[in-house]
Amino acid sequence: MRVKRGHLVIVGGAEDREDGREILSRIVALSGGAKARVVALTTASRRASEDRAAAHAIEESYRKAFLASGASHFQALHLFDRHAANDEANAEIIMGATCVFMTGGEQARLVSILGGTTVFRAMHKVYLEKGACISGTSAGASALTEHMMVGGPSDPLPRKGILPLAPGLGFLHHVIVDQHFSARQRLGRLLAVLAQNPFLIGMGIDEDTALVISPDQTMEVVGRGAVTMVDGRDMDNRPYVTANHGETMPLLDLRLHLLPSGFCFDLNKVRGGREHCEPRLSVSFYDALEAVIGNC
Amino acid sequence: MRVKRGHLVIVGGAEDREDGREILSRIVALSGGAKARVVALTTASRRASEDRAAAHAIEESYRKAFLASGASHFQALHLFDRHAANDEANAEIIMGATCVFMTGGEQARLVSILGGTTVFRAMHKVYLEKGACISGTSAGASALTEHMMVGGPSDPLPRKGILPLAPGLGFLHHVIVDQHFSARQRLGRLLAVLAQNPFLIGMGIDEDTALVISPDQTMEVVGRGAVTMVDGRDMDNRPYVTANHGETMPLLDLRLHLLPSGFCFDLNKVRGGREHCEPRLSVSFYDALEAVIGNC
Repeated sequence: MRVKRGHLVIVGGAEDREDGREILSRIVALSGGAKARVVALTTASRRASEDRAAAHAIEESYRKAFLASGASHFQALHLFDRHAANDEANAEIIMGATCVFMTGGEQARLVSILGGTTVFRAMHKVYLEKGACISGTSAGASALTEHMMVGGPSDPLPRKGILPLAPGLGFLHHVIVDQHFSARQRLGRLLAVLAQNPFLIGMGIDEDTALVISPDQTMEVVGRGAVTMVDGRDMDNRPYVTANHGETMPLLDLRLHLLPSGFCFDLNKVRGGREHCEPRLSVSFYDALEAVIGNC
Repeated sequence: MRVKRGHLVIVGGAEDREDGREILSRIVALSGGAKARVVALTTASRRASEDRAAAHAIEESYRKAFLASGASHFQALHLFDRHAANDEANAEIIMGATCVFMTGGEQARLVSILGGTTVFRAMHKVYLEKGACISGTSAGASALTEHMMVGGPSDPLPRKGILPLAPGLGFLHHVIVDQHFSARQRLGRLLAVLAQNPFLIGMGIDEDTALVISPDQTMEVVGRGAVTMVDGRDMDNRPYVTANHGETMPLLDLRLHLLPSGFCFDLNKVRGGREHCEPRLSVSFYDALEAVIGNC
């Protein structure tokens, strides 16, 4: 098997589809530019599954936006059960894509319908072997990782155990993604998840903002906002351990990195020895970066 | 001079004045309960200074709320110039208060009108010698500290130098307060200030939430939300140092503590030796706590 890994573009929701389309344009550029063939999966959307007009509206909105962003081809797949997700014809469509883009909705729907199916396997294959870009926005972003949050209230307070984790689609490891991050005040819930799972690194992605992870081991923030990176590996999670279910708890000693749009971080530099690092980036930040993209 | 320090109650804005009034009730309880004599200063409000009806509306709203919260006496002082703030009669009213409460508006107005006046000196005297509670909400909260943010956009991105600091009223040192914290997505701007001034500890206070600092060296979070405590003393601020004015910058290696409502932290415990500490609280958190309330 020849490995030619593609890019991951993890979008915090509410990406601009009308004006500059900075994020969608970047996705197209990373998917072959004028040769980009985008396949959108609307699986996360319950509304799309129940209402053909809604599915059509989502499809047309993204068709218009991706074509205006320079893609040569756009197709939506409305896969709303595992039967459709196991259809070889759909898997072949995925294999012909240079970009698979997952729209928003509920991440649990996305994983329960796609997980382990032929379409799911085709997504991994086209990403790993043909260099396709895998992208998701909102719920589609959360589902990209190995572990993901599901459901749970948007409580700004950190409470024990109210945010269950579930298996995601497994494109990125050791990372938990939350989206609409600043707009929906999600720092508390992200930290509560880290207290339960300090081995995960939390990435809170703002709206109209994307984290781009390249196969050459660089990570970039694109769009209008920032990515809040929280490293809980050295945190003090005794308050979590001793709290009762649903109880709020103080969360102490997390390491925080705020990465605004425009910044690009190259993991190779630190691997070449500290003398090659961008001098203004710290060891512990590169260490977190290693955990996030070191295995990509 | 006999020292009998009072409480500081730093309110993140939008405190409940209608229903449970948890924060105002706590302020009254800390100000003598049924004997509480509350003096409210509306100085921060430009609107109150320009429109007598607006000043009256603020006064009546707080009068109703403080009396319903158990205070025996409420009086508003509408001091809109330094002449009024230097009036001995007003200073005497302050000296008779068991609580001085500053309403919202613009913190720069508050300091430029009150700073160094006889009313200002009376506030410090009644706090330090007569145990009065000093409280402020929103702009009134920001102005309580020695250094405070003034003006500046509510940009969620950390940009160099866009948020000037100015002298505040000096009731609390080494701390910078931001209010309406989660609701207005102010993590980025607080971190930008810390990058410039890593000796400060940032306290982001949510709406309808208060940080209570007691003369017995305990700190408590009260209300509906949380306090986000950011300790930048060990941060890597080279990106700040090398950035140009207005440029966004990554902010790396901050230490984050999220303190939800209901938690109470006693600094005396750590001073009695680690064996007296609440076992689930970490050394670095207590170290930050020492910086915040150790001199109170």
